[in-house]
Amino acid sequence: MTGQKLLAEGLGTAMLLIGVVGSGIMAENLAGGNVALALLANAIATGCMLYVIITTLGPVSGAHFNPAVTLAFALRGDHSWSASAPYIAVQIIGGILGVWACHVMFDLAILQSSETMHRTGTAQWLSEILATFGLLFVIFGGLRSRPDAVPALVGLYITGAYWFTSSTSFANPAVTIARGFSDTFAGIYPGHIPMFIAMQVIAVGIGHITLPRLFARG
Amino acid sequence: MTGQKLLAEGLGTAMLLIGVVGSGIMAENLAGGNVALALLANAIATGCMLYVIITTLGPVSGAHFNPAVTLAFALRGDHSWSASAPYIAVQIIGGILGVWACHVMFDLAILQSSETMHRTGTAQWLSEILATFGLLFVIFGGLRSRPDAVPALVGLYITGAYWFTSSTSFANPAVTIARGFSDTFAGIYPGHIPMFIAMQVIAVGIGHITLPRLFARG
Amino acid sequence: MTGQKLLAEGLGTAMLLIGVVGSGIMAENLAGGNVALALLANAIATGCMLYVIITTLGPVSGAHFNPAVTLAFALRGDHSWSASAPYIAVQIIGGILGVWACHVMFDLAILQSSETMHRTGTAQWLSEILATFGLLFVIFGGLRSRPDAVPALVGLYITGAYWFTSSTSFANPAVTIARGFSDTFAGIYPGHIPMFIAMQVIAVGIGHITLPRLFARG
Amino acid sequence: MTGQKLLAEGLGTAMLLIGVVGSGIMAENLAGGNVALALLANAIATGCMLYVIITTLGPVSGAHFNPAVTLAFALRGDHSWSASAPYIAVQIIGGILGVWACHVMFDLAILQSSETMHRTGTAQWLSEILATFGLLFVIFGGLRSRPDAVPALVGLYITGAYWFTSSTSFANPAVTIARGFSDTFAGIYPGHIPMFIAMQVIAVGIGHITLPRLFARG
Repeated sequence: MTGQKLLAEGLGTAMLLIGVVGSGIMAENLAGGNVALALLANAIATGCMLYVIITTLGPVSGAHFNPAVTLAFALRGDHSWSASAPYIAVQIIGGILGVWACHVMFDLAILQSSETMHRTGTAQWLSEILATFGLLFVIFGGLRSRPDAVPALVGLYITGAYWFTSSTSFANPAVTIARGFSDTFAGIYPGHIPMFIAMQVIAVGIGHITLPRLFARG
Repeated sequence: MTGQKLLAEGLGTAMLLIGVVGSGIMAENLAGGNVALALLANAIATGCMLYVIITTLGPVSGAHFNPAVTLAFALRGDHSWSASAPYIAVQIIGGILGVWACHVMFDLAILQSSETMHRTGTAQWLSEILATFGLLFVIFGGLRSRPDAVPALVGLYITGAYWFTSSTSFANPAVTIARGFSDTFAGIYPGHIPMFIAMQVIAVGIGHITLPRLFARG
Repeated sequence: MTGQKLLAEGLGTAMLLIGVVGSGIMAENLAGGNVALALLANAIATGCMLYVIITTLGPVSGAHFNPAVTLAFALRGDHSWSASAPYIAVQIIGGILGVWACHVMFDLAILQSSETMHRTGTAQWLSEILATFGLLFVIFGGLRSRPDAVPALVGLYITGAYWFTSSTSFANPAVTIARGFSDTFAGIYPGHIPMFIAMQVIAVGIGHITLPRLFARG
Repeated sequence: MTGQKLLAEGLGTAMLLIGVVGSGIMAENLAGGNVALALLANAIATGCMLYVIITTLGPVSGAHFNPAVTLAFALRGDHSWSASAPYIAVQIIGGILGVWACHVMFDLAILQSSETMHRTGTAQWLSEILATFGLLFVIFGGLRSRPDAVPALVGLYITGAYWFTSSTSFANPAVTIARGFSDTFAGIYPGHIPMFIAMQVIAVGIGHITLPRLFARG
């Protein structure tokens, strides 16, 4: 593992959070209370960013940008365990830096803590399991069927998943932590973060057991 | 035929219904009565999901997720008749499970029956013939011209067809049945399901007669 | 030239008009006077349909669906003059049939004549020259640089051009004529059709002179 | 360097501005004060146009359409310095002509000067650095990982960046200058242009130092 890979994971996760949180701020500023319109812009901007960072950084670092994905690759034996801890560390750090960059770009206080209280409860927790399982499904299914389509698969999956899960599909522990640092459209109250992450980790376990059978070659 | 294929058809159809019904619930919740905005989000999320599940599961099961498509392949001799009944069964079961997963994710009663009464009448029935014929046109035309584009073709066709047919293009008996189990944005009153399915089957017949001539190689 | 090609041109143009006019009717019905939202849905549905019909029917007939395109190909010597008149005839007939299919699907009177009076004036006429020139630019540039991208190029170009021209980019004489037969969102008063078509033909001339130089191989 | 390349750069930049400014005018006309909806249409139309002009003109001129990109290529040694001044000149001229074409198409006074006063301040200046750095990241990362994806990468990046930067990502000195000539949705007060361009040039410097390391082959 090289510094280049860690730089790519950190920068990519920062850009992902810029896509998520920045577009959320802009959308909320402009939408005048029309939450559906704000979420539509937020979902499209996030999907665009995912396509871009996975295409460009995939050959450099594998383009995880997500501790759940790093963990899933490690469980499969496709990513070394020793490389996983630094990957996850830079993903979290990069994500937080990305949020702070958004605050700078939109002239907000840099240090914030989210007061968004509605991202909790059984329905959203189950949404996070399904959302994260679906993300792993898309990645590992795409790697089997059409590896060059993985950037489009992930970008389009998340664009859709903003809408078809009640949690709007965080599906990523680094993203979840970083969004706790922003009291804006995409924020999540820090006290609600642990359960989201727990659900995401459970989904990694479910995916590890089921996906190899689903995508086994005949 | 293996259990892997049936699992893929069932899971894929469940995911399709999650895309359709889940995004419908979210859209209705957020759109504040702006039906055009709700349908736009619903159409985009559905198209995203179709692209994802056809790309990933195509090599596993053929990615039908639709009894009309299974029937059309069987009529062409591209899918065995003996494998068609189990395919159709798991599509219907998977679709219903997908709807129930949406209800769990959005904290709604799991067992519902749609009271949406406006999905009936000659205009919508003819829409379903055209919508289903168009879907088969896209699949068989795409398989002839550019098989790798079929996921994008189906996803984009349905995204558009939500708008250019008065029925919003169910075009799928398993989807139609499953949507009867949800009294939300995407629901259809169960008494109106049989005519929708009859129209979809008629379209399979029309497609079977016309499409081979249209796409015959010179 | 075979009947298969003519069938493809007629069916494809009918589907194009279904995409344009059908989505316009649905959008107007649902948008509650929000014209920007209606045009957004209309533009997306049209782009989706263009991608689909050009991908599937391209290998059959060349996927013109547009007398201006047929004329441009004939001028380049890429399409025989004797085949051009029947192509243009079935495009116009197919387009009108597509409009009538929309009226059936949306339970409207089949025979209509548009009363939409605002599609006229110098600004819109110049828009049609630019829109049609841009369409030919995209087609002939794409055929030179990446023929497999032509369906996406045309679909995305028109989705954008609905917005960046004041006429919303008809750019197609068969589409223009057919839209005269619908007194709905996409309609155009028949008396205003001849000038639109004249502008489209002028653009073919401009494209014929300039594009070969622009895209000449060094 | 040939006249063909300069024609391509000038025409492509004109078309880019038609996409940006024309769709902005249409969106503002139709959106009735709903700025989020206007920006969504503006972002989608711009992304469509970028995909189209980069795909078609890439093989002709390299499809820069942006003095910052030309400068970045020259710094890398991938574009001769002697060819850079004429490239930049035709990009600026083409951009202004594109704006004037929009004014003609929308029946506005051709000569305008923007009175849009809100495009200034530290937050937007930092946004322009990040937006331009991101554009170069996407181009040079894409050229390394998947050159055929560059048109989609740039189109999707900018569609997203309209939302995740507070400046809506001009990221292009020729676009910035040209937008000063339009007192419409996309306009920028001429007095605010120099700082935007300065930020864009700073981003070229940052990209020149960092991107070769990030995308170095192992």
